[in-house]
Amino acid sequence: MSDVTSKNITWHGSTVTTEQRQELLGQRGCVVWLTGLSASGKSTIARRVEQLLLERRSMVYVLDGDNIRFGLNKDLGFSPADRTENIRRIGEVAKLFADACSVTLTAFISPYREDRDKVRTIMPAGTFVEVYVNASVDVCEQRDPKGLYKKARAGQIPEFTGISAPYEEPLSPELELLTGELDVDGCANAVIAYLEQKGFLPA
Amino acid sequence: MSDVTSKNITWHGSTVTTEQRQELLGQRGCVVWLTGLSASGKSTIARRVEQLLLERRSMVYVLDGDNIRFGLNKDLGFSPADRTENIRRIGEVAKLFADACSVTLTAFISPYREDRDKVRTIMPAGTFVEVYVNASVDVCEQRDPKGLYKKARAGQIPEFTGISAPYEEPLSPELELLTGELDVDGCANAVIAYLEQKGFLPA
Repeated sequence: MSDVTSKNITWHGSTVTTEQRQELLGQRGCVVWLTGLSASGKSTIARRVEQLLLERRSMVYVLDGDNIRFGLNKDLGFSPADRTENIRRIGEVAKLFADACSVTLTAFISPYREDRDKVRTIMPAGTFVEVYVNASVDVCEQRDPKGLYKKARAGQIPEFTGISAPYEEPLSPELELLTGELDVDGCANAVIAYLEQKGFLPA
Repeated sequence: MSDVTSKNITWHGSTVTTEQRQELLGQRGCVVWLTGLSASGKSTIARRVEQLLLERRSMVYVLDGDNIRFGLNKDLGFSPADRTENIRRIGEVAKLFADACSVTLTAFISPYREDRDKVRTIMPAGTFVEVYVNASVDVCEQRDPKGLYKKARAGQIPEFTGISAPYEEPLSPELELLTGELDVDGCANAVIAYLEQKGFLPA
């Protein structure tokens, strides 16, 4: 022990502040929370935004069923409590990515207003961007890329959002994308334009 | 519905591959898992590496008690099952950050070999860098910046690692830092040199 003292080794820490990180990386972190029915286009829009921003060398990451459901949340089922915990954890992870200065897109149906609002409350003010990916059940059911609506209509999937379970539309989302009218690039560019306008990304 | 069809709106997605992301961002993601006793220097080293890498505009993020315990894992206590779940979730989140190409440092005591090894198994081969932050109980107890050892000796903290609960040393860590002998910069630079040597960061 005296040996250590004699060397005068100091173990003082220092932490990078959010402002320093923003300055160094040239962008501000945020959570772009895409919500909407199954097949409304959430993941597709998120992945396109990701691609466009990476080409600009911006830091961006997408959280969706592919990387969450079989990893962090593999212990969760579909009970009401588990659905709420699912969104809670996704919100907490998205917050960490935003803290790392990443533009963080989440693509989950997240049908309940209360769950989404809870995520908004844990985020620094102004950094939660709720995006309503709005397509009617008819449009989504026509697309039905995974055949889920068909199964839901056949009664093989209980509590399917939009068919046998409610979807609570955002009351005042930061952005609304009508994916029955806009194409993928139109939606992705609308998201990016919003982020530039709000100063998350350099214009 | 016919309206949508007539517009020929296609909703094909495309996903950025890990290789494309690495190419665009100029670095490879990894998890630098710092393990060691309380006050061994894990967080201090992690924060110093973070600072040095941010100054190079590298993507880097630290997961530690400050941003995990009161957020993602605030529902967890200190029972054996909760401790294991704590490390599991941290591992899954670290994996996501590494997938985003970030150099991801974690600073948790993580005393059990089995828990650490489980995280290694979920990571892509070669991207889990276990770093043994090695300081003796004597050295850590002498530092005791939060007075935890004092409380533990007084019996006020049950199952305190190194005093009344076991710490299982890594058997073959990628890196070992003797923090009783090296200073903070020495340790941080050793981590960075390792990452450069392994191609996670440009040299």
